[in-house]
Amino acid sequence: MTARRTDLTAPRTPRGFADRGAAELAATRSMVEKIRKVYELWGFDEVETPFLEYTDALGKFLPDQDRPNAGVFSLKDDDDQWLSLRYDLTAPLARHVAENFQKLAKPYRSYRFGPVFRNEKPGPGRFRQFLQFDADIVGAASVSADAEMCMMMADALEAVGVRRGDYVIKVNNRKILDGVMEAIGLGGEENAGRRLTVLRAIDKLDRLGPEGVRALLGAGRKDESGDFTKGAGLDDEQAQHVLHTIWPLDIAHWKPASETSQTELADGTTKNIDGLQWYLSNENAIAAKRDLLVGTPSGQAAYVELMAMARLFDEAGYGTRRIRIDPSVVRGLEYYTGPVFEAELTFEIADDAGQPIRFGSVGGGGRYDGLVGRFMAEDVPATGFSIGVSRLQAALAALKGPDEAAKAAGPVVVLALDRDRIGDSMALAARLRAEGVAAEVYLGSSGMKAQMKYADRRKAPVVVIQGSDEREKGEVTLKDLIEGAKAAAAISDRAEWTESRPAQVTVPEARLVEEVKAILSRHI
Amino acid sequence: MTARRTDLTAPRTPRGFADRGAAELAATRSMVEKIRKVYELWGFDEVETPFLEYTDALGKFLPDQDRPNAGVFSLKDDDDQWLSLRYDLTAPLARHVAENFQKLAKPYRSYRFGPVFRNEKPGPGRFRQFLQFDADIVGAASVSADAEMCMMMADALEAVGVRRGDYVIKVNNRKILDGVMEAIGLGGEENAGRRLTVLRAIDKLDRLGPEGVRALLGAGRKDESGDFTKGAGLDDEQAQHVLHTIWPLDIAHWKPASETSQTELADGTTKNIDGLQWYLSNENAIAAKRDLLVGTPSGQAAYVELMAMARLFDEAGYGTRRIRIDPSVVRGLEYYTGPVFEAELTFEIADDAGQPIRFGSVGGGGRYDGLVGRFMAEDVPATGFSIGVSRLQAALAALKGPDEAAKAAGPVVVLALDRDRIGDSMALAARLRAEGVAAEVYLGSSGMKAQMKYADRRKAPVVVIQGSDEREKGEVTLKDLIEGAKAAAAISDRAEWTESRPAQVTVPEARLVEEVKAILSRHI
Repeated sequence: MTARRTDLTAPRTPRGFADRGAAELAATRSMVEKIRKVYELWGFDEVETPFLEYTDALGKFLPDQDRPNAGVFSLKDDDDQWLSLRYDLTAPLARHVAENFQKLAKPYRSYRFGPVFRNEKPGPGRFRQFLQFDADIVGAASVSADAEMCMMMADALEAVGVRRGDYVIKVNNRKILDGVMEAIGLGGEENAGRRLTVLRAIDKLDRLGPEGVRALLGAGRKDESGDFTKGAGLDDEQAQHVLHTIWPLDIAHWKPASETSQTELADGTTKNIDGLQWYLSNENAIAAKRDLLVGTPSGQAAYVELMAMARLFDEAGYGTRRIRIDPSVVRGLEYYTGPVFEAELTFEIADDAGQPIRFGSVGGGGRYDGLVGRFMAEDVPATGFSIGVSRLQAALAALKGPDEAAKAAGPVVVLALDRDRIGDSMALAARLRAEGVAAEVYLGSSGMKAQMKYADRRKAPVVVIQGSDEREKGEVTLKDLIEGAKAAAAISDRAEWTESRPAQVTVPEARLVEEVKAILSRHI
Repeated sequence: MTARRTDLTAPRTPRGFADRGAAELAATRSMVEKIRKVYELWGFDEVETPFLEYTDALGKFLPDQDRPNAGVFSLKDDDDQWLSLRYDLTAPLARHVAENFQKLAKPYRSYRFGPVFRNEKPGPGRFRQFLQFDADIVGAASVSADAEMCMMMADALEAVGVRRGDYVIKVNNRKILDGVMEAIGLGGEENAGRRLTVLRAIDKLDRLGPEGVRALLGAGRKDESGDFTKGAGLDDEQAQHVLHTIWPLDIAHWKPASETSQTELADGTTKNIDGLQWYLSNENAIAAKRDLLVGTPSGQAAYVELMAMARLFDEAGYGTRRIRIDPSVVRGLEYYTGPVFEAELTFEIADDAGQPIRFGSVGGGGRYDGLVGRFMAEDVPATGFSIGVSRLQAALAALKGPDEAAKAAGPVVVLALDRDRIGDSMALAARLRAEGVAAEVYLGSSGMKAQMKYADRRKAPVVVIQGSDEREKGEVTLKDLIEGAKAAAAISDRAEWTESRPAQVTVPEARLVEEVKAILSRHI
């Protein structure tokens, strides 16, 4: 120990960045390995791109259009070129594919996992570094590829432990909105700003409800605080057209369960009304929107593509309980060119105020046929999705209730009572490790009491003690801390506890591993 | 496809950064999981720190003293504070421990894995992003902790597949050099520059040999190209003192094997000279340097510490074949305050010119009692080591010879011959996946020949084909591509090959999974 210092640096993490501990990391790893297994079963190959890329190669494809130049961590390389930390795993994939286009067997299925970085204002649960797990198919123009994405996303959610019925993959097509914009006279470059206002209004349907969205599509909307948001300036008929398009499907598009096959019913969405069962099919859902769609080339294309996807979901046995056509899905990114999809968890958890809320989106994606083309002389079709690993992990933790990992046992702790004989303690620990039992020796300079406290904090299931008496006799004492804690809770009289020495046993050194394993097996 | 574009961005990775493919990533993962298992057996908990830290919290502890302000990727946050990408996993640990000091049970054992970043000139095999896997003990002042580090490093190398005898952990103590500097009158702040020159000269012993080092310790040295490097300016006696200290141990410090126990011999270093066997013990090695060491307080401390470590290695059965006291180990980092250690692979591989070279260092570490103290009112003892994951992986690849992973099979490929019936192909693939067989459907728009070529490039072991004939009959055709390739290699006559259709079988659809598994099991 040296004298007190005055030139100290404050130890702190930058805003929006956090350390992560063993239990959380183990939970991530377990989840990630399950997702990886699903992706590999579907024939996807892992690829990793660097954390830093040339800024111009990444481009700017962030959802927040209000700050087009912000959102990214950038710095200048020593040759004056700008580098940025990757803000997602899609832009680097586009660069990777373009750079290795001839070498890759196409269609190219790949997956990527790792942290991404957003230079944005952090908030509760909103970090500037977070994990994504993406899968993409590049080089397949057919919506079969988009359908595969949706099915694999459903498989991945089930693999990590989300039960069927607790999630839904919602599917829409950007071309529907393109068609609606054309139909109401909002096509063309000159209307880009108004189209964006319309998109943002739609995106608020969940939060504001239909009347709020209608106001934002029209003249504008005053919120509870009195703030006024200018609207897109659509007239009533135009606004009605938009609302009609995105409106979630109602019972009019359901069919009687009696006309539905048993397979469909088993994994589909059904409702009971007045004693009759109704079934929602994706084909019916799209057919119901037919008139709205086929009036424009974009709408017609959307209709054909959604119908093809609905048929594939049906043939593969992914009922509407798992994958559902939903015209209200928008997705915040501008680069999508066709099908878009969103993975939503439908179960309710308690919010900070104890109110039940739907967990909501844990990932999504869509078709982005123009992104690889930024580097090449022609467009390259591509589709993919991204799972927000941190969000999904939070959801799984909420599903499981109190943290399981917090209960997990730590390593066996071997006390070191005689500092000159620490080699003996190390040898005891080594014997446990050799048989696969995690074990550590106390390496501080404190006495017995502090060592026992340390073992408690380490959540050690067993403590191994060998004082000089025991060493002479060739024995070790084992304390079962889990049993001991139970006994201590049951015994109120402190004197009695000290006398009875619950959950403690002295055995010959040769039986160390056997006896420790016996105690451990009692607590599994 | 749209018209040719002229505003294309060049797809490229920044200098010193690289994409990594599936085989390399799988090899890393397998290696990392083995190391993780060892660390957890020893009671170490994982912790993760963010990629970006406040620059002042990281400090500058890079080996390259010539460019004290370079080496790090830094940028300004929007509140004008400087952030840097972590350049190692030790500086962030020091910050983490200081920030959470009260919460942590001490001594605190932790491990950390992940990429680090150096803003340095890249070269062949030298990247600006690379992987490290660190383990540290904070809060233990005793050299028992340093000894544990060395033993765990040895265990980790064996766990990933380096055979005993193919590596050695070399141990030294910084205080030896401190003592020598004091003894030859180079103590004190005013001699810092000359001490650094001495350290650098010593670090070149491997490359320049004793006479080269002696020149650099004295007036200076002219290399083959005629360039002159100024020396530390020591006189002959001072230089001899330094050389004598770092000189590797010779036979004078070995003892006859007849005086050595069988245990020591089994895992120690022995030599045969004139028909007699000699054994090198760590205690003897240190004892041989005793006179050099005990003349100064630092040297005396080094002597006591090394002797204590040697005894622990001995008691734990880590003979000198695994862990060896070696006074020539220096380590490039300035912050070490006591024991230092280096993991060296001792087997030879061929260099680029085909010459055999020793693989060399794959990691190391030491005691750094001052690093956490930068944040706190008092020093906090700490010791740890870092494994260079990428280097170790390269070494393992060299040990194994030609890349095993390159031979690994890809997924089963289901062809899609009728684009209107792609749902059927997807259903076949789904049945394989449901039984744990990785399978994918060809999703491009090409014909049979291109699809078979795709399957080849994907290293598919089996291709599943269902044309309209087969569909009508409820059958599938399976092509065994591995057997087919062997047969094709054996059959020279192309006509004969087409006729005989080797390694192809048509079976009822219901037997798809069973038959595919049968083919796969023939090739494992």
